[in-house]
Amino acid sequence: MELRQQSLDVLVSEVGPRDGLQSVKRTMCTDDKFAWISALAAAGLREIEVGSFVPPKLLPQLADTAAVVAHARKIPGLHVTALVPNLRGAQAAFAAGIHKITLPISVSEAHSLANVRKTHAQMIDEAKAIVALRNEQYAGVQIEAGMATAFGCTIQGVVPEDDTMRLAVIMAECGVDEVGLSDTCGYANPAQVKRLFSRLQAELGGKAGGAHFHNTRGQGLANVVAALDVGVTTFDASQGGIGGCPYAPGATGNIVTEDLVFLLEAMGLHTGVDLDKLLAARELLAKGLPGEPLYGDVAAAGLPKGFAYAKGGV
Amino acid sequence: MELRQQSLDVLVSEVGPRDGLQSVKRTMCTDDKFAWISALAAAGLREIEVGSFVPPKLLPQLADTAAVVAHARKIPGLHVTALVPNLRGAQAAFAAGIHKITLPISVSEAHSLANVRKTHAQMIDEAKAIVALRNEQYAGVQIEAGMATAFGCTIQGVVPEDDTMRLAVIMAECGVDEVGLSDTCGYANPAQVKRLFSRLQAELGGKAGGAHFHNTRGQGLANVVAALDVGVTTFDASQGGIGGCPYAPGATGNIVTEDLVFLLEAMGLHTGVDLDKLLAARELLAKGLPGEPLYGDVAAAGLPKGFAYAKGGV
Repeated sequence: MELRQQSLDVLVSEVGPRDGLQSVKRTMCTDDKFAWISALAAAGLREIEVGSFVPPKLLPQLADTAAVVAHARKIPGLHVTALVPNLRGAQAAFAAGIHKITLPISVSEAHSLANVRKTHAQMIDEAKAIVALRNEQYAGVQIEAGMATAFGCTIQGVVPEDDTMRLAVIMAECGVDEVGLSDTCGYANPAQVKRLFSRLQAELGGKAGGAHFHNTRGQGLANVVAALDVGVTTFDASQGGIGGCPYAPGATGNIVTEDLVFLLEAMGLHTGVDLDKLLAARELLAKGLPGEPLYGDVAAAGLPKGFAYAKGGV
Repeated sequence: MELRQQSLDVLVSEVGPRDGLQSVKRTMCTDDKFAWISALAAAGLREIEVGSFVPPKLLPQLADTAAVVAHARKIPGLHVTALVPNLRGAQAAFAAGIHKITLPISVSEAHSLANVRKTHAQMIDEAKAIVALRNEQYAGVQIEAGMATAFGCTIQGVVPEDDTMRLAVIMAECGVDEVGLSDTCGYANPAQVKRLFSRLQAELGGKAGGAHFHNTRGQGLANVVAALDVGVTTFDASQGGIGGCPYAPGATGNIVTEDLVFLLEAMGLHTGVDLDKLLAARELLAKGLPGEPLYGDVAAAGLPKGFAYAKGGV
């Protein structure tokens, strides 16, 4: 994480090419993905989750992930990440030359079974096997465990905070490098965010990771402010807020990268991201997904008159 | 304020019938306003800004404000407020039986001239005359000064924080009961919100008022979290986020009441508002403004499974 965040106050980790594209029905063609990801990197984003190593029949939108990784790796300074649900996916990701993988672990076991068809015990075994493979053959690759449904679950409802912490500690003990918390269903509130990240830091120390918020109920940036307050410095976001959830009609996807970068820079926190270039990348996203609704208020309203970037520039 | 907030942690002050309706081209008919306001009050909102006492030719949408005040005054327990731009408006509001008036004072003098066609000196004279009239004839009516463009201005750009504080202190000295801060143009960020409200409280003590945020750049609820952190307990919001700004294409209006109430209750802060009844009131808003776009994510996504109100109920 140190290298990625060099000179930054906050690392904005773009997950649109994975979390966004997997949630929309349309498939962006590979060349359009290349152009979009290059534009995102050119805007100053230093980490991009470019896809998911899952069977193509499950997520045809991401069937070209290995090719996208190969493209993204050529972009100087870009930290290329992907999601993997199991050892088989990790093998493919490592072979493709990924810099970092994220393994989703649902705190809600009901969601885990629905999402990756595995129990907690099975996911813990996967994590151990992935860490062992990394340690043996791919020493430079980072592994993050993303604690899905950490703030509540559409299937289970309330998720006890103790359950999240217990599983987070197990993941750290399995040897992953960091453990992040994900509000998969858009259930989180700022008070809960402060409690959970404070506990995560207390329990995991340097392995406490970043925040992955969805904006399903409009609370995404409010949760970011709470997380900043307790020292979180890495936030996932997706350009145009693309994505959604089949279980939440009308719901939007991740927090919107453009609105997040504006929030942070306006607060005086350096992200390294140029908003004009980010809005240019958004045009490529729109072009690559014709007809798909995009979200975000900064794109609609523009920057305030007299707006200044944190620390005087990007 | 004490009476309104009795037993509440946070007072949500609904401004849709004023700030919302003045910003849309369609005019809601008076009977529909009656029904909507009654439904908002039935949902538990204890303070509603029901209109504006301005010349009907300037804002024909609010020409029936006196009649709306008369209706709203009959609703038990409801604190009825209105906006007035000058002494003449205040006279009409007092005569109509208003409980509280809000006088907008633009910190940006350029905005003041554009909005109410008055300089700061002229607005200070209006405030003094309004306070004198209240003191002589309408002792029970509250007067709030709303510091418009306190966080930045579409015309002037950056608004120095010292300018906001200087004018806020003058307003308090004029004898108004409270001074609130308004992000008229959707320029505010959480760091600025904390600084300005902390200064307001330090300089004005018990006369420091609430926050009026717009969601133009999607930062509204993030700013609420920051304001809560420094002890602000009153927030304006408009149902469906209706409104907008002719100078900001695509911009939405105030923060959305439904999303704000969800935020607060989820955080454990009692508002007294029932979200199901609030969503029922939204149906009346939609019926009264056919075709007008409404905003808000809670209305689209619904409440989380297992959601519980703060302190166990409404």
